[in-house]
Amino acid sequence: MKCRKCGATAVINMRQHRLALCADHFLEWVPGQVQRAIEKFGMFVPDERVLVAVSGGKDSLGLWDVLLRLGCHAEGLHINLGISQGEYSEVSQQKAEQFAAERDVLLRVVDVAQRYGQGVPDVARRKRGRSTCGTCGLIKRHVMNEVACDAGYAAIATGHNVDDEAAVLFQNTLHWATGYLARQAPVLPASHRRLARKVKPLVRLYEREMAAYALLSGIDYIYEECPYSKGATTLFYKDLLNDLEERSSGAKQQFYLSFLRAREEGRLLGQEETRVELEECTRCGQPTTAPALCAFCRLWEEGPAGHGEWSSHDLA
Amino acid sequence: MKCRKCGATAVINMRQHRLALCADHFLEWVPGQVQRAIEKFGMFVPDERVLVAVSGGKDSLGLWDVLLRLGCHAEGLHINLGISQGEYSEVSQQKAEQFAAERDVLLRVVDVAQRYGQGVPDVARRKRGRSTCGTCGLIKRHVMNEVACDAGYAAIATGHNVDDEAAVLFQNTLHWATGYLARQAPVLPASHRRLARKVKPLVRLYEREMAAYALLSGIDYIYEECPYSKGATTLFYKDLLNDLEERSSGAKQQFYLSFLRAREEGRLLGQEETRVELEECTRCGQPTTAPALCAFCRLWEEGPAGHGEWSSHDLA
Repeated sequence: MKCRKCGATAVINMRQHRLALCADHFLEWVPGQVQRAIEKFGMFVPDERVLVAVSGGKDSLGLWDVLLRLGCHAEGLHINLGISQGEYSEVSQQKAEQFAAERDVLLRVVDVAQRYGQGVPDVARRKRGRSTCGTCGLIKRHVMNEVACDAGYAAIATGHNVDDEAAVLFQNTLHWATGYLARQAPVLPASHRRLARKVKPLVRLYEREMAAYALLSGIDYIYEECPYSKGATTLFYKDLLNDLEERSSGAKQQFYLSFLRAREEGRLLGQEETRVELEECTRCGQPTTAPALCAFCRLWEEGPAGHGEWSSHDLA
Repeated sequence: MKCRKCGATAVINMRQHRLALCADHFLEWVPGQVQRAIEKFGMFVPDERVLVAVSGGKDSLGLWDVLLRLGCHAEGLHINLGISQGEYSEVSQQKAEQFAAERDVLLRVVDVAQRYGQGVPDVARRKRGRSTCGTCGLIKRHVMNEVACDAGYAAIATGHNVDDEAAVLFQNTLHWATGYLARQAPVLPASHRRLARKVKPLVRLYEREMAAYALLSGIDYIYEECPYSKGATTLFYKDLLNDLEERSSGAKQQFYLSFLRAREEGRLLGQEETRVELEECTRCGQPTTAPALCAFCRLWEEGPAGHGEWSSHDLA
């Protein structure tokens, strides 16, 4: 197969675009797709500072790399979740730090166990009603938001790609969870002064493209999936969507993008619950729908010893 | 496994209902589910005459059988599509006729080739832009509607089960075809005096349950799928949904039923195209959105010789 741009040997064929490219042109094409998403969805403008949530995996490091190539003012945030199984968190942080050091860019690190007293798996174990992944999501959202607001970033960028978005959309569609369907978007505007805007610049890229991008750019990332994701429903949905994609190139992307279009055109969702009034958490000040403590702060109630004093937010 | 009702050996386990039943109780349970669907969705009332569209397969013959057991005034319509491959149409008609003869109930038969001059595959071949399945659907809808209206039936009942409905819903959802999503329903009211109401009394039953019902009731049906359905996208979607069901019992049914609920509650679809004004076809009189001839009548334009005279509708 030949590169469509220059005729050299292609390294990747993106059937959904009928587009084969050589390494050089592929490494140009990916940032172009990201740029297009940023502009089309109005994610941020060139002089805004963006905080990239960096797990250490191919998507988030790839995203950061692309944003830097595009000349964006992008700094990183790594949240160490305290997952010791397979040294997952240790290796993840190391990959993120190495990336930042090589490029001489700022990486902020928040170690959940150090800062709040317990890592994610321990918190989830203590709070029996909560799943590990649910707890993890809650903690990450809180920390990302806090760091972004405290340090004055215009937006938080996460590495969600088409596969991620389509899988979540699929899950919400299977249950016709219209509330979630209403909120899933490439850009979530800041609806409160203590809520940062959230953007997903990779919504035009497939997971395999991001893997190829990381490989071809020489990005060293953590290959292992989180040990807690084994057997996760989202992974099952991703497989299903890949079966679909296999049969009909572009199905995955079309599913997601035509959803956005239908919703934007007002053809989808009816009128539902009007916007909920947000309170501020009496402890951390972040917006919450609860009357006193937010869900994050409630995680630490009757928590591990020594948590009484609320540590100041010593960001790296 | 034991029957939940009587403790005898169960013949079927319906995991989505956590319900195992023996043959006798299963043969009671299926009509109960149909009755429930008829009532819940207001399909028809006991003294209304219903025309059952009978292909000769397990679902349509099973449906007819159930309706007769429930004491409904149900008569049959078989449309011979003229599919000679594997003697598909011949065997189908034979199974339908045998069923009717054994129960001494009225079966109307319309032979498409005899009545209009060509069978479905020949028409599709002649009309190059049209797929065989699309042509078949168009012809069946026209004939069913015509027979039901001419003979004064209150409703046309078809054997669509949960698997069928979920697969179509899945297809429409993948493309976010909101127009189709708005119209897919267990009951399609008659919106014109020449349009019959359409009902799907099997929307609470899985395909495997209907297969079990046919088997246990001793219904002799055609096992072969239509030769043109090989590799059909709908079958692929059914497989996907069965993978889902395998992982999570009830997923298929929940997908479909929660869709109906969300739409009914006004949480789904926004405002879209208002109802289109229907014209009457200048040839057959059936409602159409086209200005002169309906899509069915256009099938026969410049059609096979001898079609000039529009035959009277000699129903068996």
